[in-house]
Amino acid sequence: MATQANSVPHPTLVEVDPFVPADQQKGLHNRWHPDIPAYVNVKPGQVFKVQCVDWTGAQIGNNDYSDDIKNVDLTRVHNLSGPIAIEGAEPGDCLVVDILDVTPFEKMPWGYTGIFELENGGGLFAKEFNSKAAKAIWDFKGIYATSRHVPGVRFAGVSHPGLIGTAPSADLLATWNERERGLISQDPNAIPALAFAPESKGAYIGQDLDAELVEKIKAEGARTIPGREHGGNCDIKNLSRGSRCYFPVFIKGANLSVGDLHFSQGDEISFCGAIEMAGIITLSISIIKGGVEKFALKQPIFLPSPVDPMYSAKLIFEGISVDYHGDGKQYNMDATVAYKQAALNAIAYLMKIGYTREQAYLLLSAAPVESHVGALVDSPNACVTLALPLGIFEHDILPKEEGLKKIDFGQCAIRSDGVV
Amino acid sequence: MATQANSVPHPTLVEVDPFVPADQQKGLHNRWHPDIPAYVNVKPGQVFKVQCVDWTGAQIGNNDYSDDIKNVDLTRVHNLSGPIAIEGAEPGDCLVVDILDVTPFEKMPWGYTGIFELENGGGLFAKEFNSKAAKAIWDFKGIYATSRHVPGVRFAGVSHPGLIGTAPSADLLATWNERERGLISQDPNAIPALAFAPESKGAYIGQDLDAELVEKIKAEGARTIPGREHGGNCDIKNLSRGSRCYFPVFIKGANLSVGDLHFSQGDEISFCGAIEMAGIITLSISIIKGGVEKFALKQPIFLPSPVDPMYSAKLIFEGISVDYHGDGKQYNMDATVAYKQAALNAIAYLMKIGYTREQAYLLLSAAPVESHVGALVDSPNACVTLALPLGIFEHDILPKEEGLKKIDFGQCAIRSDGVV
Amino acid sequence: MATQANSVPHPTLVEVDPFVPADQQKGLHNRWHPDIPAYVNVKPGQVFKVQCVDWTGAQIGNNDYSDDIKNVDLTRVHNLSGPIAIEGAEPGDCLVVDILDVTPFEKMPWGYTGIFELENGGGLFAKEFNSKAAKAIWDFKGIYATSRHVPGVRFAGVSHPGLIGTAPSADLLATWNERERGLISQDPNAIPALAFAPESKGAYIGQDLDAELVEKIKAEGARTIPGREHGGNCDIKNLSRGSRCYFPVFIKGANLSVGDLHFSQGDEISFCGAIEMAGIITLSISIIKGGVEKFALKQPIFLPSPVDPMYSAKLIFEGISVDYHGDGKQYNMDATVAYKQAALNAIAYLMKIGYTREQAYLLLSAAPVESHVGALVDSPNACVTLALPLGIFEHDILPKEEGLKKIDFGQCAIRSDGVV
Amino acid sequence: MATQANSVPHPTLVEVDPFVPADQQKGLHNRWHPDIPAYVNVKPGQVFKVQCVDWTGAQIGNNDYSDDIKNVDLTRVHNLSGPIAIEGAEPGDCLVVDILDVTPFEKMPWGYTGIFELENGGGLFAKEFNSKAAKAIWDFKGIYATSRHVPGVRFAGVSHPGLIGTAPSADLLATWNERERGLISQDPNAIPALAFAPESKGAYIGQDLDAELVEKIKAEGARTIPGREHGGNCDIKNLSRGSRCYFPVFIKGANLSVGDLHFSQGDEISFCGAIEMAGIITLSISIIKGGVEKFALKQPIFLPSPVDPMYSAKLIFEGISVDYHGDGKQYNMDATVAYKQAALNAIAYLMKIGYTREQAYLLLSAAPVESHVGALVDSPNACVTLALPLGIFEHDILPKEEGLKKIDFGQCAIRSDGVV
Repeated sequence: MATQANSVPHPTLVEVDPFVPADQQKGLHNRWHPDIPAYVNVKPGQVFKVQCVDWTGAQIGNNDYSDDIKNVDLTRVHNLSGPIAIEGAEPGDCLVVDILDVTPFEKMPWGYTGIFELENGGGLFAKEFNSKAAKAIWDFKGIYATSRHVPGVRFAGVSHPGLIGTAPSADLLATWNERERGLISQDPNAIPALAFAPESKGAYIGQDLDAELVEKIKAEGARTIPGREHGGNCDIKNLSRGSRCYFPVFIKGANLSVGDLHFSQGDEISFCGAIEMAGIITLSISIIKGGVEKFALKQPIFLPSPVDPMYSAKLIFEGISVDYHGDGKQYNMDATVAYKQAALNAIAYLMKIGYTREQAYLLLSAAPVESHVGALVDSPNACVTLALPLGIFEHDILPKEEGLKKIDFGQCAIRSDGVV
Repeated sequence: MATQANSVPHPTLVEVDPFVPADQQKGLHNRWHPDIPAYVNVKPGQVFKVQCVDWTGAQIGNNDYSDDIKNVDLTRVHNLSGPIAIEGAEPGDCLVVDILDVTPFEKMPWGYTGIFELENGGGLFAKEFNSKAAKAIWDFKGIYATSRHVPGVRFAGVSHPGLIGTAPSADLLATWNERERGLISQDPNAIPALAFAPESKGAYIGQDLDAELVEKIKAEGARTIPGREHGGNCDIKNLSRGSRCYFPVFIKGANLSVGDLHFSQGDEISFCGAIEMAGIITLSISIIKGGVEKFALKQPIFLPSPVDPMYSAKLIFEGISVDYHGDGKQYNMDATVAYKQAALNAIAYLMKIGYTREQAYLLLSAAPVESHVGALVDSPNACVTLALPLGIFEHDILPKEEGLKKIDFGQCAIRSDGVV
Repeated sequence: MATQANSVPHPTLVEVDPFVPADQQKGLHNRWHPDIPAYVNVKPGQVFKVQCVDWTGAQIGNNDYSDDIKNVDLTRVHNLSGPIAIEGAEPGDCLVVDILDVTPFEKMPWGYTGIFELENGGGLFAKEFNSKAAKAIWDFKGIYATSRHVPGVRFAGVSHPGLIGTAPSADLLATWNERERGLISQDPNAIPALAFAPESKGAYIGQDLDAELVEKIKAEGARTIPGREHGGNCDIKNLSRGSRCYFPVFIKGANLSVGDLHFSQGDEISFCGAIEMAGIITLSISIIKGGVEKFALKQPIFLPSPVDPMYSAKLIFEGISVDYHGDGKQYNMDATVAYKQAALNAIAYLMKIGYTREQAYLLLSAAPVESHVGALVDSPNACVTLALPLGIFEHDILPKEEGLKKIDFGQCAIRSDGVV
Repeated sequence: MATQANSVPHPTLVEVDPFVPADQQKGLHNRWHPDIPAYVNVKPGQVFKVQCVDWTGAQIGNNDYSDDIKNVDLTRVHNLSGPIAIEGAEPGDCLVVDILDVTPFEKMPWGYTGIFELENGGGLFAKEFNSKAAKAIWDFKGIYATSRHVPGVRFAGVSHPGLIGTAPSADLLATWNERERGLISQDPNAIPALAFAPESKGAYIGQDLDAELVEKIKAEGARTIPGREHGGNCDIKNLSRGSRCYFPVFIKGANLSVGDLHFSQGDEISFCGAIEMAGIITLSISIIKGGVEKFALKQPIFLPSPVDPMYSAKLIFEGISVDYHGDGKQYNMDATVAYKQAALNAIAYLMKIGYTREQAYLLLSAAPVESHVGALVDSPNACVTLALPLGIFEHDILPKEEGLKKIDFGQCAIRSDGVV
C-alpha cells in the first residue's frame, strides 16, 4: 500500500521566506560574479526545488496604492537563489536544464505588475507617458490570474523564471563590464540610464564570506538587469514550466542561479513586464560534455513546453518604425519604435472598450501577448506585430459593425497622492 | 443533379500572365498614389479572384544560377494588382478584407527565395556577409514546399500576400514622402539606402491614362518597399489565407492593391525573405462605416487564420543587442541587432548539421520560423528569440549527447562565376 | 526569367467531368476487386493529380429542395477514381501516400450535406428521427464554407478524401464477402441493412474490359460503403491534405483508388456526414519494401497534417450508453449509444440558440466537430464526448447567466412536399 | 511590502491523509446517495481546495510487484471527497464548476497505472489477454511523468479528476438502480460483471450519522464505477485543470463530490486507464439559476482548458468493427470492437520498437493518447482512430525505410509469482 516510506518528496535545496527582506536571508544574491561560491551542489539528474523571493525582495505589497512601486530600491535587484553547482560541469560543457515546474507559494497566492516612474525604473513608455507609479495586484486561482485592478480578464499563466543563468567566467565578466561602461559613457546622465555599471550600493551576497572577497564581488559583479550570453534576465515567457534549456558553462560547476519568477508575461514591454511573484521552481539538470562546441552555443537555446496556454483566436496589431503616435518622425528600421507603435495601437483599442491607459499598459505586460518581428528588411520601416488573445476577455472584444462597447473598468492602483 | 448551370465560379477580376514582364500587362502598378484610378470595382460581400505576377514581374527563373538575382531591376518592384475599388467605401471607413485563399498558378508550381547583392537589394546580413547573389528554387507539392537547393526539409506553406494596402490620400502620401526624404538626407549615399524616394525610372501604371497624370503619379508615387499606415509591404506571414484584416480607408472607393504573394515565409529576415511566387488571391471585402474612429485604427489590425501550419515542437535561439558575432559592440536596446544574433546563432547551428551559410540563411527566410521580441526593457540588452520548427526537417536535429550529425546538403544556386 | 518552359505543372492522370453521370465516364469504378486493371501507372515519388466526381456521381444539385437526396440511387456509390498502379509495389509492401492537396473544382465551388430517408440511406438517427430527406448546400469561399441553409456559421474545411484504399487480394476479398454475408444473414430484412453484399445492379467499372471479366467483378466486387483493412471508406477527417498515410499492399501494383472527397467533416455522424464535393486530389506515393511486417500493419496508419484548422475554444458535450433521449434503456458499454446521446445533447443545445433539429444535425456532420471515446471500461456506461468549436459561430454561443439568445435561422432544404 | 498579513492562502476544506486507509478518514464516501449530508459548505465564487486519496484509498504501493493490484478490494472504490454544498443551489440550477488546479501531494510525488485481473477488475482487454495483474509506477517531476517500468517516454500530465459529480435526487437514484439491475439480470454471472448493483459490503460514508441512515445509504447508494447524468466517473481527460464544467443540480445544495484524481490519462482503455494519484484539487463554483432548462442539460457540458499539453505530431492507428486481431468476426457498427482493433494495432507497433504487450497497454492508458470516433454510419464497420503523440518518446518512432529500431525496455511490474 501507499506509505510515507515509499513516497520520497523532491528535496528543497534553497529555502527562503517571501515576507522577509532579501538581504536578511541566506542563499540569495543580486550580482553576477564567478567568485560567488556555490550555495548548494546537485548531482546530474536529481530533481530538486528552489524557493525564490520576488525580484524586489518583498518590497511590494498586496494593497491598493502604488507608493511602493514609486519608492522601490532598484539597487537591490534582482534577488537570485543559488548559485547551484552541478557535479562534473566544466567550462565548454552544455548544461541541460529542465524547468519542471514553477509555482507560487501556497501562502502567497498573488503577484503584481508595475509601471515604474520615469526617474526610478522607467519602462518602455516611460518618456512617452512621463510615467508615474501604478500597479495591478493579480490573484492566483489555480492556473489562472485575475485582478481587482484590471477587471474583465482571466488568463492562464505561462509561469517561468524571468532570470536564470550560469555564472560568467572572469574573462566574460570583464567583457560585459567593459562594453557596458562604453555604452554608458556615451550619455552618462541619460534618464532612464543606458546601462548599469557594477555598484556596491545594494549589492548582496547571501553567504558568510571573507570580507575582502565580498567587496571584490560587489565592486565587479555585473548587474542582473540585462540578459547576456549566459542567459540571465532574458524575460522569455516561453522558457516556461516544461521547457528544456541548454546553457553554456563558463566556470567549474556551472553555478546556476535563478529568480525573478513570473506567473505570466507578455512579450515584455513595461519595465516590470510580467506578473511578478515569489515562488518555487523545480529543476533537474544534466550535462553534455563539450556542448558549447557541439551546438555552436553563443547563448542558450531551448525547447518550449508542451503546456503553454493555447489561445488560438487573436487580434493582431501592427506597428512600423514611424512614431505616428508621437511626433511622426521616421526611424531607420528600428524595431523598438515599431514595437511601441503596435503596443500603442493595442492600448488605443483597449481604451475604446473601457480600460484606462494604465490598465491597458499593465494588461499587455501581464497577459500572454505575443509579439513578432514581421520584417526587418523593407527600408526604412521595420514592422512588428502584437497579438492579443481574445479568450482572456470576459466580453467579446472583436470589431463589430456597431463599434466597440465601452465598459467602466475603474482604474488600477495609483499613487496615494492621486498623480497618474 | 449537379450541373454547370447551378455551379457559378467566383469571377477573376484581374488577369495576368506570370511569364510576361509586368510592364507589358494591364492591371498592374508599382507605386502608391491616390490618383491611380480603380482598375476594377467590386460590391461589398462579393467573392472574387485576383491574379498576381511575382514581385519582380517574371525577372527570376527556375534554374540553377543566381545571376538573375544579381541583376534584378529593383526600380520595377513591387508589381501590384489593382487598384480595386469597393462600392461605398469612404475615407474614415474600415475595410474588412477576407483573404479567403492564396495559391500558386497551376501552370507555375514553383517559387524562389533570394539573397541579394550588397549593392543591389542587400538584406539583413548584406554587410556582415558582404552578400553575393544566391537563391533557392522551391517546388510546390500541394500544401508543401521542397527545394533541390536546400535538401532535407519539407514544410507547409503559410501562403499570404506580402503586400496589400489601401491607397493613400494626397495628404498621407505627402507625409510619407516628406518623412522618408528626411531620413535619406541623413546619409544620402548609404549602402544599402536608408529609404527610397519616388522615382520615375521603372515606375509603371498599367492603365491607359492621360500622359500628364502618369507623369504626376510617377513623380510623386510612393515606393512600395516599406509597410506604412495603409498596410503595404508589411510581410506579415500571419496575414495568411483565412485571415480577416481591417484596413483604414483614405480615399473614396478605398482602392485596394495587392501583390508580392508568398508561398511561405519566416518572420522576414533576408531581403527577399519568403518564397516568392506568382499566384491567385481570393478575396471578399465589406465595409464598416466610420471604422477608423470606432477601432482607433492607425494601421491595419487583423485576425489570423485557423489553418496556419501547426509545428508545436521548436528549437529556440536567443539573441541580445550585443554584436557578439561581429566586433562585440554593445548596442542600446536595439532589437535589430538582437534579432541578427538570434538568426546567426540559428545559422551556426544549421551549419553544424551540414547546411552552408547561404542555405541556412535562405531556409530561415523561407520556412515558418517565428521570431519574438522577448524584452525591450532591460537596459541595455533587447532580447529577441527565433524559433525553428523541428517538424520541417527530415532528420532529427535535436541536441544530442553525441553531438549533431553532419550531412552533406550540397549548396544552393549561386552565381555562374562561382563567387559566393 | 520565369517562363512557360521552366514551369512544368503536375500532370492530371485521371480527368472527369463533375456534371456528367459517373457511369458515362472512364477511370471511375464503384466496387473493390483485384481484377480491375490499373487505369493509370505512376512512378514512386511523382506528384500527380486525380479528379473525382462527388460520391453519388452528380446526382445531387445546388438547389433548395431535398428530393434528389430522397431519390438518390445508392447502388451506384461510391464512384472512385483509379485504380492507380505504383511501379514496383508488391504484396507485403507499405505504400507511403502523401495527400498533398484536396480542392474543389474551380467551376463547382459548392458541396452538400444530406440527411437520408430511413428507407434509403438512413444514418445515425434514421430511426430516432424517422428521417426524411433534407440537405444543406455549402458555398466554398477559399478555405471557408458557408451555407444559406445553415446561416450563422463559417468554418475552414479539413478537406480530405472520404474514401481511399488499395485493392484487396482475391483472398482478402473473399474474407470480406464471407464475414459480411454472415452478418446480413442474422437479419436479412433489417432497415437500415446491416451490411451490403456484392450487387451487380449499379456496379460500374469504367474501362473497356472483357464482358466476362466485368460480370465477375460485378458479381464479386465488395461494396465501397464500409472501411476495411485496406483503408476504404473510413471517413477519417484527419486524413486531410498534408497528411501522410501508410497503406498495406495486397496485390502487385497496389492499385490505389480514391474518391468521395469532402470539403469538411465532423467525426462522422449522419449517413452523408460531411460536406460532399467533386474535386481534385494531389498525390505523391512511395514504397517501403516489406512494410506490412516492419510496421505490423493490419490497417493503414497515418500522420496528420500540420494545417488542420485550429479552433482551440470548444464546448464539449458528454453522452453515456443509456438512451436517456429515448426510452431510457441501459446498454452495456455501447459507444454508439453513448455517441448518440452526446450528439443529441449538442443538438438540443443548438436548438436553444435557434437552429432546427435538421439544421443542427447537418451542422454536426459538416463542421470540424471532434468526438472522443472517453471511457470504455467503467461498466456499464461507455462515455463519449463531442466537441463543438466556438470559433465557427458568428455569435457568442457560450452558456450565459441570462440563458441563450435564440435567433431565427430559418430551415435547411427539405422535400418539395414539405414533409420533415 | 509583501507580508503574511496581506497574503491569504485559499482554504483547504477537506483534509485527508493519502497514506491512511480511506475508511478510517472523515470527509470521504464511496457511494452516490441524496441523503449523504454535505460535509462542507461553500459560498459561490469562493476559491478552495479539496484533498483526495487515490481511488483505492491507499491500497497500491510504490514498489515493483503487482500483487496489490491483483488483490485490490474493489467494493471499497471510489473514495470521493465531499459532499460539498453550494449555498443557494437548487434543483434545476446549473453549477458552474471551475477546476482551477489539480496537483499531487508534495509528499507523494508518484502514481500508478494498473492492469487488473480478469476476475478482479478486468479492463478493455481482460478477456483477450486473459489479464494478469501488472502495473507501472510513474514518478512525477513537475509537469512530467516518467516510469522505471516503462522507460523511454516522458510526457506532460493532463491532470484532472476522474470522478466528479453532483448528488442524484431520490428519483434519479431510483432510475439508475432500476435500469442497471435490468442489465445485470440479462447475465448475472458475467465476468467481468455487466454492471454493479448497490452493495453494503465495502460501502463507506465518512461522517457520524444515524446508524439507520447509514444502512439506508449503503443499501441504496449507487456505485461510483460508471459515469451517469450527474457526471460521475466519466474519465474525461479534457476535464483537466483550467476547464469549466456546467453540472445539473438535482438536490438542494447540489452536494458535489470529487475524487479519483489522475495525473494523466489517455482516452481510457484499461480498467485503471490513467495515472492514478492522491492529490489536491482547487475549485471555485458559481450558480446559474434554472440552468438545466436554459442549456438543455441532460448531462454536464464543459469548456476545456487552455493549458492541455500540445503534442501536434502524432501517429494515428485505425480500427474497424471486425475482430481481425481475434477470430475475424464481423460486428455491426460496434465502436468498442473498432476501438479495440485500433488499440491492438498500436500495441503491435509499440512491440516492434521493444515494449512488451503489458508495457504498451499501460502506456496507452497513461499517456495523452487521443481516440476519435471516425465514422458510425458506414455499415457494418464503425471506424475508430487512436493517436499516439510522437513527442513523448525519447527516440524517433516514425516509420522508416529500414524498419523500426527495437530497444530492450525490460518489463513493467508483474506479480511476484511471475505469472503474466
